[in-house]
Amino acid sequence: MTTLDDLPIRDDLRGKQPYGAPQLDVPVQLNTNENPYPPSAALIDDLARAVRQGAATLNRYPDRDAVELRKDLADYLGHGLTARQLWAANGSNEIIQQILQAFGGPGRSAIGFEPSYSMHPIITGGTNTRWIEGLRGEDFAIDPGAAVAAIEEHRPDVVFLTSPNNPTGTALPLEVIERILAAAPGMVVVDEAYAEFARAGTSSALTLLPGNPRLIVTRTMSKAFAMAGTRLGYLAADPAVVDAMLLVRLPYHLSTLTQAAARVALAHREELLGAVDALRAERDATVDWLRGHGLAAADSDANFVLFGTFADRRSVWEGLLDRGVLIRETGPAGWLRVSIGTPEEMAAFRAALEGVLA
Amino acid sequence: MTTLDDLPIRDDLRGKQPYGAPQLDVPVQLNTNENPYPPSAALIDDLARAVRQGAATLNRYPDRDAVELRKDLADYLGHGLTARQLWAANGSNEIIQQILQAFGGPGRSAIGFEPSYSMHPIITGGTNTRWIEGLRGEDFAIDPGAAVAAIEEHRPDVVFLTSPNNPTGTALPLEVIERILAAAPGMVVVDEAYAEFARAGTSSALTLLPGNPRLIVTRTMSKAFAMAGTRLGYLAADPAVVDAMLLVRLPYHLSTLTQAAARVALAHREELLGAVDALRAERDATVDWLRGHGLAAADSDANFVLFGTFADRRSVWEGLLDRGVLIRETGPAGWLRVSIGTPEEMAAFRAALEGVLA
Repeated sequence: MTTLDDLPIRDDLRGKQPYGAPQLDVPVQLNTNENPYPPSAALIDDLARAVRQGAATLNRYPDRDAVELRKDLADYLGHGLTARQLWAANGSNEIIQQILQAFGGPGRSAIGFEPSYSMHPIITGGTNTRWIEGLRGEDFAIDPGAAVAAIEEHRPDVVFLTSPNNPTGTALPLEVIERILAAAPGMVVVDEAYAEFARAGTSSALTLLPGNPRLIVTRTMSKAFAMAGTRLGYLAADPAVVDAMLLVRLPYHLSTLTQAAARVALAHREELLGAVDALRAERDATVDWLRGHGLAAADSDANFVLFGTFADRRSVWEGLLDRGVLIRETGPAGWLRVSIGTPEEMAAFRAALEGVLA
Repeated sequence: MTTLDDLPIRDDLRGKQPYGAPQLDVPVQLNTNENPYPPSAALIDDLARAVRQGAATLNRYPDRDAVELRKDLADYLGHGLTARQLWAANGSNEIIQQILQAFGGPGRSAIGFEPSYSMHPIITGGTNTRWIEGLRGEDFAIDPGAAVAAIEEHRPDVVFLTSPNNPTGTALPLEVIERILAAAPGMVVVDEAYAEFARAGTSSALTLLPGNPRLIVTRTMSKAFAMAGTRLGYLAADPAVVDAMLLVRLPYHLSTLTQAAARVALAHREELLGAVDALRAERDATVDWLRGHGLAAADSDANFVLFGTFADRRSVWEGLLDRGVLIRETGPAGWLRVSIGTPEEMAAFRAALEGVLA
């Protein structure tokens, strides 16, 4: 039998394993930061209607530039943004890949401050961009002096900032982003996949876009919009950045159905973002509960909580799994991450964790 | 105003224009080899039903490995293929990109025999793979001796063969593919986007898969399946090749809706492939008609015809456009390509061309 080792794959891929959180069929899945609330009947009705309408021309290629969707995304984000400043792709992973194809690549480098979203270094490697590992502090914040020093030392072509950060939940103050923007010689990407879950008073990097053509803010509809199955990521930036995306995108990358589904979800945003409030309250209660049980829990502006620390986190993870609750073994040594589910799911998580710790 | 030139994009992207056929709003669109037949009411009903069903879990990520879809694709292709030998992505463009990410990339090269599908060199460049331009003969066939000589000279990591070829319509005899497979040091990709349109007696490279782990056959649902808007490309190869794709794919690259829509189309294949017969007949009649009018028309096994030759092909293209018929100015100098539409659309094309030539 032929194996992967017998094929002429690139040397840098040899010995690698496919990325992916274990997907196990257990009752309570709190491992991939999905939104636990499925679309409403009203949203599904509108979606079925939109698909029926779109299906009539499914033999034709989609709108290559997704103009109507980009208008709707600009309208949702506000801040005076226009469709010319928006770009969409199949999940924010593809957005990140396109950014690196345009601004990274062979002979270029990207930096991120870890622990952070694990796909940043993976996609950086996948585009043959050199990855530079910056570090967050003990409190999971980015120290602006240390970050600026790392940027001045390495002169990276792309800087990744994740706010709120995954897997720690930490939001970045705008002043930190501004200092990094001033120091960075290339593009600065603020990954705001979890922005809608931030606590009151947390500002979006969208407010920094005017006058900063090297700033890119990425978003997703997988989390607050509860549309992980639709795969819709997007960015907001200067129109010149969108022009760069047009050079590297695969033609017709975004299907007619994806464009239609994303527009339906945007039209239902009031309903969808309503559930965000419930998830935030559940998150804050989870942080309090964990701390009340003598555990550490990182402040979170996202729909998950990083907690610990455990001398043997694997055994805690397995103990929860034995009790039907799947969370994620990720983050710094000793920590675990739990996604925020429904009140019932979080009750199951708490009961399981009490069982494991007893 | 900031322009693309002000941004730190890669040097190899500077001065480039986004790829894409002009999309103009004219009555008769015969420029992108779309299938002119929209989905039937029955297919749309099933699609709406499948989307309703899939929408219930749209807050969850899709099946990362698209297992059910790959089973259906294997079942459609036959030849004893299994799901382990199939892989799917957002259009065959993404399939080609993943192949090059795994087997091409910096320091590696890919060869194609031109004129051929223009995305092969573009995606090769997009993955920082070096492109080697091989040539087809005057009759648009690949001379196996010349091809083997070019492969032995350049030792490319990836060989692209397009059969039936775009934009010429030319199918490759299996013997040519076999000789190239024997000579190629790396992977051989046979792009069979138009395979279902081939004339009787044309064999698919799928028959060569057993015992050839370096052979990859790519297909699409955009053409015969009339699903260009769905964006579903796929490949068949040794299971080890699929393992390589798992290393480079972006996690959750294929949405729940795309997987569902593709499966619905596969379930309706009898109806969809029925229209292929009509398109083939229309194609053969178009070739005959063009030749009857003193023009050259390449033999075609696809859903388009390359015809000419014109001292000033641009003026012929514009003359047709003035008459409401959009075709494609592509291929070798002097030739034009017309996609096969409905009988009414082809009548409009013939009338317009007579007008232009008069």
